[in-house]
Amino acid sequence: MIYAVSPKMRTHGCRDVNSNNDGLKVLIGGWVQQIRDKGRLIFLTIRDQQGICQVTLHEKKVNPEVWRICKEVSLESVVSIKGSVKADPRSKLGAELIPSMIYIHSQAASKFPIDLTKMKTQMDIDTIFRYRELSIRDPEVVAIFELKNIIASATRRFFLEKGFTEIFTPLILTTSTEGGAEQFRLDYFEHPAVLAQSCQFYKQAALACHEKVFGIIPSWRAEKSHTPKHITEFWQIENEIAFATEKEIMDVQEDLLIFIMKEVLKEGKLQLELLNRTITVPSKPFKRLTFNEAKKKVQELGIEVDPQVDFGNPEETALSKAFHEPFFLTEFPTHLRGIYYACHDQNPKITRSLDLMAPEGFGELSSGGQRVSDYKILKERITQQGFNLEDFQWYLRMFKYGMPPHAGFGLGFERLIRWIANLSHIREACMFPRTPEIFQP
Amino acid sequence: MIYAVSPKMRTHGCRDVNSNNDGLKVLIGGWVQQIRDKGRLIFLTIRDQQGICQVTLHEKKVNPEVWRICKEVSLESVVSIKGSVKADPRSKLGAELIPSMIYIHSQAASKFPIDLTKMKTQMDIDTIFRYRELSIRDPEVVAIFELKNIIASATRRFFLEKGFTEIFTPLILTTSTEGGAEQFRLDYFEHPAVLAQSCQFYKQAALACHEKVFGIIPSWRAEKSHTPKHITEFWQIENEIAFATEKEIMDVQEDLLIFIMKEVLKEGKLQLELLNRTITVPSKPFKRLTFNEAKKKVQELGIEVDPQVDFGNPEETALSKAFHEPFFLTEFPTHLRGIYYACHDQNPKITRSLDLMAPEGFGELSSGGQRVSDYKILKERITQQGFNLEDFQWYLRMFKYGMPPHAGFGLGFERLIRWIANLSHIREACMFPRTPEIFQP
Repeated sequence: MIYAVSPKMRTHGCRDVNSNNDGLKVLIGGWVQQIRDKGRLIFLTIRDQQGICQVTLHEKKVNPEVWRICKEVSLESVVSIKGSVKADPRSKLGAELIPSMIYIHSQAASKFPIDLTKMKTQMDIDTIFRYRELSIRDPEVVAIFELKNIIASATRRFFLEKGFTEIFTPLILTTSTEGGAEQFRLDYFEHPAVLAQSCQFYKQAALACHEKVFGIIPSWRAEKSHTPKHITEFWQIENEIAFATEKEIMDVQEDLLIFIMKEVLKEGKLQLELLNRTITVPSKPFKRLTFNEAKKKVQELGIEVDPQVDFGNPEETALSKAFHEPFFLTEFPTHLRGIYYACHDQNPKITRSLDLMAPEGFGELSSGGQRVSDYKILKERITQQGFNLEDFQWYLRMFKYGMPPHAGFGLGFERLIRWIANLSHIREACMFPRTPEIFQP
Repeated sequence: MIYAVSPKMRTHGCRDVNSNNDGLKVLIGGWVQQIRDKGRLIFLTIRDQQGICQVTLHEKKVNPEVWRICKEVSLESVVSIKGSVKADPRSKLGAELIPSMIYIHSQAASKFPIDLTKMKTQMDIDTIFRYRELSIRDPEVVAIFELKNIIASATRRFFLEKGFTEIFTPLILTTSTEGGAEQFRLDYFEHPAVLAQSCQFYKQAALACHEKVFGIIPSWRAEKSHTPKHITEFWQIENEIAFATEKEIMDVQEDLLIFIMKEVLKEGKLQLELLNRTITVPSKPFKRLTFNEAKKKVQELGIEVDPQVDFGNPEETALSKAFHEPFFLTEFPTHLRGIYYACHDQNPKITRSLDLMAPEGFGELSSGGQRVSDYKILKERITQQGFNLEDFQWYLRMFKYGMPPHAGFGLGFERLIRWIANLSHIREACMFPRTPEIFQP
C-alpha cells in the first residue's frame, strides 16, 4: 500500500470502462466483487454504485507492487485503481482496465457473512435482513432503491408542477388521530404521546394555509401483521385539496400513477431490466367498483365473503389478481371508515370514499375521499363511532371556526414501490425495514 | 343558503379579482376575513390561500337572498361567491367583486379565539400556539410555509440535479446512534427503542448502494432546551458522499445555499416582502475560521470563553452576529465531536469537521466533515469515548467488510427556514412545532 491516493479518489465510474473509451486513463473506486486468481493472471471484478468493470493483471506486464497488492486484496475490500481502458471484444463487458496503481482504502475481513451472488436462491430471509447493511450491496437490491428515488422524485415533481405545497406535519402526537389500529406509545416529557399513525388531521389543518398540500410523510402502526404488505414504519404520499370533491381525488391519483409510470419507464429502464420487471402505463379512467360490487366479484372468485366487514387479505389479493391495471373501490360503508369521511347525501350508511388498488395481487395502495367539513356532522360522527369529543378538541375547533369542503388521500409509498418493482414482500422496499421481527440494523 | 354550490367550488382565486379582469365572471371560495356593514352597503373581505379580494354589496342592487346571507355570515366563515369583477381605481385592490350568488359552506362560530390582525402586536405566544390550527390563517404565517416549500423543493432539485439519490432511513432505532443528547424512548414490541436523533449511521450505510445520498429526514432530541433555535422534533437536510473529503462537503454546502437563496429570491418575492425580509445571495468561498480562531474572536467580542468546551448559545450568537454572510467553523477538537468524525493525519486531537454558520446571530446551521472509514480506528474512537463496542455491532460490521472513504453533513431544515425568513424563534418555522412545552395541536 505504498501508493498515495490522489486528492480525487475517483475520476470515473466502473461503467466508463467500456469499449467506447479505449485508451482512456481513469481512476475508479469501488468494492472488489470477484477475484479470479489464475496463477500468473488475476482478474478482479470491481463494483461501484453504478456498475462493474473487469481489471486484468498479467504478472509479467504489471508493476510488481500492484501485483503484490492484488494478490493480497480480499473480497468486498474497497479500492481505488488507476489505469487505462482497453477495449476487448472477447470480454462480456466489452473492455477491461489495465492497472498502473491500486490503493486499498479498506481491506475487508475474510469470510463475508453472506453470499451476494446467491441472495435470491440460497440465502434465507432472516440472514439477509440480519446483515442488511451488507446484503444491500447486491445490485438487485440497489436497483430497488434507485427506482424508489425515481418514484419519490416523480411524485414530488407531479405535485409541485400542479401547484401543491409540500407540508411537514408533526410526528409525535398527544391526541389519537384515528384510534383503531395500534399505536407506538412514548413518554413526551411526562405526557403520554404516540407516534403518528397518519397525518390526517394535520394535512386537513394545513388547508388553512395552502389550497392543495402534499408530502411524503412517515407513519407508524404497532400491529403484529404478518402479511407481505405490512411494515410498522412506513411513508405515505399524502395529499389534501380544499374546495374539492372525491372526483378530483380520483383524477389526481390517475394522473399521478400515469406520471410516475412514465417516469419509471424513462429513467428506470436498467433497474426494471435487472429486476426482470415489465410495467405498462395504465389507461384513464381506471375501472371503478363499489364496495358491494367488489364483494360480489370476490365471491364469484370462489372466496367466502362477509359484506359487513372490510376486505381481508385473501379477499383483497384475489380481487387484485383479477385486474391487470390499477382500479378504484368506492362507496365503502360508513361503519368501516374513519370519522373524517363524508357520507353520501342520500345515504348516511355509505361514504364518499375510495381505495386505489394495485393489480396483480398487490392490493390496496391508497385510501381517500371526501371529508366531513361540517362541524355538527363531525361531532355526530365522532360520538357515533364511540369516541370522546374531548379527545378531538383542537381538531373540532378548526371546523367550528370555518372549514372549506375538501378531499384527499394517503398512498402507501412502500406499497407503490413493491408493486412497481414487483417485490414479494414490502420489507424489500425499505433499506432498513421495521417489522414486528426486524428492528435492527 | 338556498343556492346550490356548483360542481366546481371555485373557478378563480381572490387575486383574480383585479383591474385586469374587469367584467370577468368568477366563482371564488375562501374565508370571510373582514365584514364592514354600513347599513345599506356591505363590504366583505374574502381571503383564500393566495390572496384577498373585496366583495361589495348595495342593498338596492343585489339579489335580496344574497343580501340576507351576507347580513348573516360571520367572520372566518367559509363561503363560495359567484359574481363579476369590477375594476375600481378608488379601491386599494384595484377591483371589487359584485356578487350574484353566495353559499356558506361553513358558518364560523362567533368570537374567533384570536385576533388575526394583531398577531404580532397583541397576542401572546402561548395563545398563538395553543390555537395554532387557527393562528396559521394569518397571511404572514402562511408566507413562512410558502418559503419553506420553496426551500424544500430547491434543496431536492439541487441534490437530484447533481446526481444524488434520495434515501429514507429508519426512525425507530434499537441501538443508540450517538449517545450524548437525550432520546425519546419507546417500547418496540417489548424491545427498548428510541426515536432517531439523526440518520448518521444509516446514511453512511446507504453508500453501499449509492455514491451520493441525500434526504430531508426527521430527527428528535428530548432536550429541555429553551433557546430560540431548539425544537424537539426537527427535520434535517442530510447528505453523505462516498470517495469524498470534507473539502467537497464544503463545496456542496456553498453551492446549496447559493442555489436556495437564488430560488427564494426568484420564487419567494411576495413572501419576503410580506415578512419584510431582505436577503442576498452569499458569495463563494464562504469565510472559514478554525475552532481556535473562532474562540479567540468571541473573546475579542468581550465574551468569556473556555477553549475546551463547545460554543455555548451566547458565544455562538455573538460570533454569528459578527458576520453578514454564512461562514464555516473548522477543526473542532476530537473530544467535542462524534465517534464518526475522522481526525487530522498529523494531529489526533483535531477532527476534519466543520459547522456551517448562519450570520446575523442565527448561528449553527449544519455539522459535517470527513468520516472515519477505517475499522480499527473506529473501534478505538468508540472505546476512547467510553462507549461499548457491542452497542455498535452492525455499524462496525460494515467497516469490517469494506467501507469507502466518505464525508457528509446534516443541515437543520427549520434552522435554515428561521434564518431565511428571519424568525425570532425556530418554532415559527413549523406548522405544528414540538417543544418541551408545546405538544398540541
